[in-house]
Amino acid sequence: MFLCDIGNTSYHFLHKNLDYKESVETFNPQTIQEKIYYICVNPNIIKVLAELDNWIDLAQYTDMKNYYETMGIDRIVACEAISDGVIVDAGSAITVDLVKSGVFQGGFIYPGSRAMGKAYSNISPALEYEFNYQLDLQSLPKNSRDAISYGYLKMLHTEVVSQNESIYLIGGDAHKLLHIFPNAEINQNLIFDGMKKILKQVN
Amino acid sequence: MFLCDIGNTSYHFLHKNLDYKESVETFNPQTIQEKIYYICVNPNIIKVLAELDNWIDLAQYTDMKNYYETMGIDRIVACEAISDGVIVDAGSAITVDLVKSGVFQGGFIYPGSRAMGKAYSNISPALEYEFNYQLDLQSLPKNSRDAISYGYLKMLHTEVVSQNESIYLIGGDAHKLLHIFPNAEINQNLIFDGMKKILKQVN
Repeated sequence: MFLCDIGNTSYHFLHKNLDYKESVETFNPQTIQEKIYYICVNPNIIKVLAELDNWIDLAQYTDMKNYYETMGIDRIVACEAISDGVIVDAGSAITVDLVKSGVFQGGFIYPGSRAMGKAYSNISPALEYEFNYQLDLQSLPKNSRDAISYGYLKMLHTEVVSQNESIYLIGGDAHKLLHIFPNAEINQNLIFDGMKKILKQVN
Repeated sequence: MFLCDIGNTSYHFLHKNLDYKESVETFNPQTIQEKIYYICVNPNIIKVLAELDNWIDLAQYTDMKNYYETMGIDRIVACEAISDGVIVDAGSAITVDLVKSGVFQGGFIYPGSRAMGKAYSNISPALEYEFNYQLDLQSLPKNSRDAISYGYLKMLHTEVVSQNESIYLIGGDAHKLLHIFPNAEINQNLIFDGMKKILKQVN
């Protein structure tokens, strides 16, 4: 089985048991001749792939009734992969989605670390710091770096943990967030798991 | 008494009982001949005012022992104004500071609404929405605008309310935040109150 999850920056492939990435800027999808199932959040790439017979968009097979219209297909497919839990997908944005008994309960969107860092530094050069993922989340900070890190991370932490569910971390910054969610599970194949599940239901 | 609180965008004056603002870009401080006490977070303006004998920087009279070195003088002076409470100063950044029995307990910095809106829209045009300050903070959203508004506002709300103290709102976006903190008190003269208190202690 050949699967591909396409984001804003890369094509993430799963071919048999091997997963690898290609850059959105340089990869040519015509180089693949096999039948490949994909999901894609990038509207320009969707247009290109629609012209290629062997690239099959899984979005058309996804039951949307539990989700909302403008929700990203990557979030939906990740939710389909689990029965119960909170999925934290830490990419250019951080999406947080709650699933209970296999049903999506709602979710929210938070800026990713790069976007949030820029938000602070654009306000003032005095707010330009690398986030401290090891900060103490139990007491209010008394220094600038932690004051910013706490603003970014404490609140994400509180909201995710308050759901009282297993936490699944995915996306490029998953390993960073493991510092604040030490009991979470990193599963970079969660979206592929969801894609396989949808394919199984269709067949 | 003539007081001035200078931020990144405006001079905020209190002259006798009248308060008014002037733009940082157009106002010339040499037009004031009277003795005036000020605080200022803008390093360029501090340099200009240091040359003017009638402009007196209150920062030099502020007891810093409870604060940290890089903390903005506006946050410090606002904290000096109260005995107990959380001060939420919603400007280009949102600063949140906790004071108990007159002693600063720590605080954090969060992006203001404009910076946070830009952070979302820079990630993707699909995330470009006006924040919904009237959203339901009790349940996870199922639409894009609320998913973003929740990401921005819910977490700020949780963290501020969890301090279990009176909430003081100041800054240009104070009225917006009143929607999520309906029991808060808006007091745009809090910094002037702090400045008066420091002046009293000095004299």
